[in-house]
Amino acid sequence: MINVQFAALPERWDTYAVPLRTAFDQAGIDVDLRIDHVPETVDYVIYAPNGPLSDFTPYTRCKAVLSLWAGVEKIVGNASLTMPLCRMVDPGLTAGMVEWVTGHVLRYHLDIDHSILNQDRWEPWAQPLAMERPVSILGLGALGAACARALSQLGFPVTGWSRSPKVIDGVICRHGEEGLQQALTDAEIVVLLLPDTQATENTLNAQSLARLAKGARVINPGRGPLIDDDALLDALNSGHIAHATLDVFRIEPLPLDHPYWAHPNVTVTPHIAAETHAITSAQVVAENIRRGESAEPYLHLVDRTLGY
Amino acid sequence: MINVQFAALPERWDTYAVPLRTAFDQAGIDVDLRIDHVPETVDYVIYAPNGPLSDFTPYTRCKAVLSLWAGVEKIVGNASLTMPLCRMVDPGLTAGMVEWVTGHVLRYHLDIDHSILNQDRWEPWAQPLAMERPVSILGLGALGAACARALSQLGFPVTGWSRSPKVIDGVICRHGEEGLQQALTDAEIVVLLLPDTQATENTLNAQSLARLAKGARVINPGRGPLIDDDALLDALNSGHIAHATLDVFRIEPLPLDHPYWAHPNVTVTPHIAAETHAITSAQVVAENIRRGESAEPYLHLVDRTLGY
Ligand SMILES: NC(=O)c1ccc[n+]([C@@H]2O[C@H](COP(=O)([O-])OP(=O)(O)OC[C@H]3O[C@@H](n4cnc5c(N)ncnc54)[C@H](OP(=O)(O)O)[C@@H]3O)[C@@H](O)[C@H]2O)c1
Ligand SMILES: NC(=O)c1ccc[n+]([C@@H]2O[C@H](COP(=O)([O-])OP(=O)(O)OC[C@H]3O[C@@H](n4cnc5c(N)ncnc54)[C@H](OP(=O)(O)O)[C@@H]3O)[C@@H](O)[C@H]2O)c1
Repeated sequence: MINVQFAALPERWDTYAVPLRTAFDQAGIDVDLRIDHVPETVDYVIYAPNGPLSDFTPYTRCKAVLSLWAGVEKIVGNASLTMPLCRMVDPGLTAGMVEWVTGHVLRYHLDIDHSILNQDRWEPWAQPLAMERPVSILGLGALGAACARALSQLGFPVTGWSRSPKVIDGVICRHGEEGLQQALTDAEIVVLLLPDTQATENTLNAQSLARLAKGARVINPGRGPLIDDDALLDALNSGHIAHATLDVFRIEPLPLDHPYWAHPNVTVTPHIAAETHAITSAQVVAENIRRGESAEPYLHLVDRTLGY
Repeated sequence: MINVQFAALPERWDTYAVPLRTAFDQAGIDVDLRIDHVPETVDYVIYAPNGPLSDFTPYTRCKAVLSLWAGVEKIVGNASLTMPLCRMVDPGLTAGMVEWVTGHVLRYHLDIDHSILNQDRWEPWAQPLAMERPVSILGLGALGAACARALSQLGFPVTGWSRSPKVIDGVICRHGEEGLQQALTDAEIVVLLLPDTQATENTLNAQSLARLAKGARVINPGRGPLIDDDALLDALNSGHIAHATLDVFRIEPLPLDHPYWAHPNVTVTPHIAAETHAITSAQVVAENIRRGESAEPYLHLVDRTLGY
């Protein structure tokens, strides 16, 4: 019997308990899944950053901590977490992010806000094709690569940027500091799908914003600290950046007095771009426990020195 | 020498002359392209409904009329047009329509209007995946089939409807009267890409609107007469239809006093969903002239009895 503790938000227990038990059965592993195991007896922890757990010291027997979230910035620096940490790569989460990013890129591309807000005259305009609208995606991981493929499929010229070199069909892949400059130059829409680490903080700052095309749009479903907020507000106010759609912020919920709320050229969404899905993520958790038990390498293991 | 008359809007001459001449060269045909040939000497007419030509009687030698538009409802019933008529299937036009339809479907799916218009509180919601959002496309021709494929690729369960039976990978294809009822039942988003013919008028009427899911959304980039406007307004007012995005109308420009303009749940766009593109459509025109000269069957020949 393998003892697994569910340490996400307690109100998620109802959503996850059945899918997890089903996935354990299908993986052929015999699991005692509970919210309230005695810490010293726990073999695996299923974790989410808004859950009850922050001190892993008593989890002396724990073989791995399995995050339900893709972003692990809130836990990766936790000194009491000495066991392997896995982040979530979930087909349901990925599908949601592809839909959200594609929807907002097309919204900007087609100027849908104009159609919604300026509903008063018959004034046809010439609509450029996606092939004439360069899009850059910073971050080519599980989410960024899937978004890059979907946008390329729709005809957008897509440039992506990552830490290590990548090859993705139909996508120009850049990496490293010089690669970032190339990826940003003349982009009309930029999408941030980097993890929040020391190295990625303020990736979008005054200097990098200046490289984008005049009138460019910024979409951030990654993490708040990826953007230097003052620099973005300056660029929005000068008109160099035409609009921003922001789903994530340094402080969430975004404080009521933050200038983003009232800015006419900013759309705030409340961290809803993509959510982990219970059924598909339960299968990933089960597979990782199966791997742990058979001493096979874990999927989606976090590199603690890189921070993601 | 083949005499070809350009009978689209004269202000389009500057956009089309060079692409057409280039395409004729590439197709290896020797063409004298003009706006002002003597009608009796013309071999082919390049036509658009807003152009100068309506009486084809003097075009006694003309082998075919080649429309630059996909929709031919304004010319197909013209009694003086006795020669073959070809409509436009243009990769540029198709790409534009796929982008426009995908953009508005995702806008509805993600409730982007809510994010744009209700910009005042942090209130996260659970976003369903595309796989949970049935979309129906009426019309599976050049445009409808391409949109169906793109939406299916993004994960939407897509049902399409056409006159004759079709097989499209990943799309449930229906046809005929009973097929229409099946295609509409419980659809949450419906897209109209039928041609305007006697048989398609008022395809969306009180009865067919009632089959859609409560709160469904309607997207019409096809033609105005496909919709019974009074029935749609009733369904919008009762709340059975939550929203409509309409690009085409029985009278264009849409008259200023039309209730669509002021309706809070209608977005009007000024017939801009997709435009024929000069370079790619010129190649289609050239290929059809080459076919005419070598007595090969024309591409995209209109069936005069069906009206499209
Ligand atoms: N808003 C939401 O609802 C939501 C939902 C889920 C996730 N997210 C965010 O999305 C982020 C990405 O998720 P994911 O699953 O795609 O992560 P991932 O698979 O770890 O991918 C991260 C990508 O960023 C690149 N990267 C990391 N550090 C970099 C650096 N210093 N310079 C250049 N590139 C760097 C990585 O490069 P390599 O490929 O070379 O390693 C990789 O391509 C998460 O960390 C989370 O913050 C947001
Ligand atoms: N808003 C814009 O900017 C814009 C731009 C371009 C075109 N359009 C409109 O889009 C329309 C479609 O263009 P297209 O190139 O896709 O046309 P198409 O290739 O001729 O396709 C028409 C489709 O409608 C189906 N259909 C016709 N009559 C029907 C009936 N009575 N019952 C059921 N299905 C029927 C056809 O069925 P079969 O396959 O069985 O023949 C076919 O699938 C054009 O006619 C035009 O009105 C609008």
